Amino acid sequence: MTLSPPQTQPAQTLAEQILSHACGRPTFAGEVVTCAVDLAMVHDSIAPAVIRILTGDLGAAGVWDRERVAVAIDHVAPAATIQTATAQDGVRRWAIEQDLPHFFETGRGICHQVILEERLARPGMLVVGSDSHSTAYGAAGAFGTGMGATDIALALATGQTWLRVPETVLVRARGELRPGVSAKDVALHIARELRADGATYEAVEYHGFDAFTLGERTTLTSMAVEVGAKAGIVAPTGPALASYDVPEWFGVQPGASYRRVLEVDLGALEPQIAAPSFVDNVTDLGAVAGGDPIAVNVVYLGTCTNGRHEDMAAAARILRGRRVARGVRLIVVPASSQALQQAAEDGTLSVLLEAGAAIGTPGCGACIGRHMGVLAPGDVCLFTGNRNFRGRMGSPEAQIYLGSPEVAAATAVTGFLTDPRALGASPA
Amino acid sequence: MTLSPPQTQPAQTLAEQILSHACGRPTFAGEVVTCAVDLAMVHDSIAPAVIRILTGDLGAAGVWDRERVAVAIDHVAPAATIQTATAQDGVRRWAIEQDLPHFFETGRGICHQVILEERLARPGMLVVGSDSHSTAYGAAGAFGTGMGATDIALALATGQTWLRVPETVLVRARGELRPGVSAKDVALHIARELRADGATYEAVEYHGFDAFTLGERTTLTSMAVEVGAKAGIVAPTGPALASYDVPEWFGVQPGASYRRVLEVDLGALEPQIAAPSFVDNVTDLGAVAGGDPIAVNVVYLGTCTNGRHEDMAAAARILRGRRVARGVRLIVVPASSQALQQAAEDGTLSVLLEAGAAIGTPGCGACIGRHMGVLAPGDVCLFTGNRNFRGRMGSPEAQIYLGSPEVAAATAVTGFLTDPRALGASPA
Repeated sequence: MTLSPPQTQPAQTLAEQILSHACGRPTFAGEVVTCAVDLAMVHDSIAPAVIRILTGDLGAAGVWDRERVAVAIDHVAPAATIQTATAQDGVRRWAIEQDLPHFFETGRGICHQVILEERLARPGMLVVGSDSHSTAYGAAGAFGTGMGATDIALALATGQTWLRVPETVLVRARGELRPGVSAKDVALHIARELRADGATYEAVEYHGFDAFTLGERTTLTSMAVEVGAKAGIVAPTGPALASYDVPEWFGVQPGASYRRVLEVDLGALEPQIAAPSFVDNVTDLGAVAGGDPIAVNVVYLGTCTNGRHEDMAAAARILRGRRVARGVRLIVVPASSQALQQAAEDGTLSVLLEAGAAIGTPGCGACIGRHMGVLAPGDVCLFTGNRNFRGRMGSPEAQIYLGSPEVAAATAVTGFLTDPRALGASPA
Repeated sequence: MTLSPPQTQPAQTLAEQILSHACGRPTFAGEVVTCAVDLAMVHDSIAPAVIRILTGDLGAAGVWDRERVAVAIDHVAPAATIQTATAQDGVRRWAIEQDLPHFFETGRGICHQVILEERLARPGMLVVGSDSHSTAYGAAGAFGTGMGATDIALALATGQTWLRVPETVLVRARGELRPGVSAKDVALHIARELRADGATYEAVEYHGFDAFTLGERTTLTSMAVEVGAKAGIVAPTGPALASYDVPEWFGVQPGASYRRVLEVDLGALEPQIAAPSFVDNVTDLGAVAGGDPIAVNVVYLGTCTNGRHEDMAAAARILRGRRVARGVRLIVVPASSQALQQAAEDGTLSVLLEAGAAIGTPGCGACIGRHMGVLAPGDVCLFTGNRNFRGRMGSPEAQIYLGSPEVAAATAVTGFLTDPRALGASPA
């Protein structure tokens, strides 16, 4: 909704509104505030350190509120080594001892996606997570942010955290995406325009995305951190949020102060590619390497950015009746068990399997290079995830291009970076 | 079919018949023969060594017959480390250079299952593979056997191998399995009776299994090597083999010479468990640990022994409307993409996901403890696979019980080793 600010205070950004609510008084960019946390999330990679700090250094008997804690086993799940298995058993034991109702086992999926599916992140909430892509919760209108183990442990012990209220960069979209262009292209375009440090410790606020699904919004907000942002929040309007209770105090306020405004004409966007090895090394797909063909031997569809059912379905529409090129491996790792189930039930999964895809356990997969599709030296990967840093998915001698699910599917078919619009209609 | 041997020679076992055909003259147990190989299989774990021997030590330009070679990337797929990814890239390049038509990429599934699905192993064939469970091909009436890298490289170079013709142990079944008892219980019962060294360098021939599906036969034959056998061959009769061309020279011959006959009354069998840490440490499920409850925190459904669609479906019948016990992780790794697709299309996958299962990439999974569900110290696992040796699936301080898919499902629900018949009808 669009709100007028109370008469007594200047207009606020979405981030300012949430943090005002969380700290109990009106607050504005630049202030440091102590806030009540609505939800704290930890995952298997960081949870062992968090638990050690919480129970050891802080001497806490337990978490401040069982209902407001989410624990996910998603980063290397199922465990790929004895060491990770051992760490996860410790996390599992602790979560059960604490009788946490929101404990998500191996295979349930990526923490961010599962928390959104379970509606644990909602409009106006402050969510802190032990993962940098916790900005994803802004898809549902929450201020989501990633923190280190110590800060998360403190939040678990006390239910509070402190933050400097960020300034906000406004991304304002108009128009509609053309066929073959999707939310990931918008996210990459934003990284291209703002650059990787373009919103450091700021909030990104997204207007003009009312037509976007919750999943498309998550594509945007999960990548807010890739321009350095503390949070990325989509205006809580449009059909995707219709089933949520948006607090009466929460909504876009005319006159709020934005440090910068980035205008995006959705209708003018081309498929975007982030070339190795920086997220903001973005060009139009047709202009990568000056338009020379780029051979790709690994295509990886998944992550919190683009591993949802709609992403698999978009790929399946291109892959239907086609086969993955010989020598190319296509790895599809659904973001959640729910996404996988949907894909099974509507035939998407069958299309992917018939095309030759390898389906991985719902979770983070090889996004962090620790299992389920690690890259070898010389591999060239088209990845639907959010980071293409050197060594991110395995060998530092591999190269990673970021692109949309549509580009991923077209590239899997040809073995070269391919514009999905160039393939023509699906043959089957 | 049941054959009379030619007038001029004594009756032969199935193994003797296949090896006679493969060496071009009648041969009998005890003889050493040089044989023509019908199919040679290599997988990602061993292929790098095989290729090195083939192209380096043997100086072969290529394989003897492209059509008779199968290469699978299944053992650690998708790659879990840079090292495995690098090795697999080498195998992939070689398979493509050789233009091998039967190259099975990451995600297609376990070599044995895929070769059976693709009907590359057929009645009367001699199949050699770089994997001990190559005995599995006996489900389709082939003499399948595992060999080391040097022997496989020689077979790839020349199309020939040498073997001592094995003696045969006959397993003769009568009756029908009762509900809740399945092929895995038969395989474990055979290990219990013959013991791990009970058929060392012998063939096991299975009579009385005409009602068994190809999958159920594969459960038996994949475990032939667990009693030391060189091959395990099911009599090539019954509906499961109706669509195969059984050579006229191939079939059970009355009067063939068996070193030992094991009679099995299928109708009397109880669910069987192989307790840690030997495959032949088998007792009736109700008698494990004197009947005391055994807590289990990992249930693993998969492998070439029990990862087929029918195994998942058997588990789903028990899991429907139920949930995996808190603190237990249920990992389901389909044996092939075809099995996964079937499970997606008939609703089996949805049941498993709703129960809380983690679905893994079709392939060998954690069977060899290298990824996708490695066990931690203290873990107690009910495993539908074929080996429970100390450290097989990860930590040597974990314990592995072998059981059927039905026992796996019931155990996942309760968190204790559980007889599927004790759970009663599925609530949904």
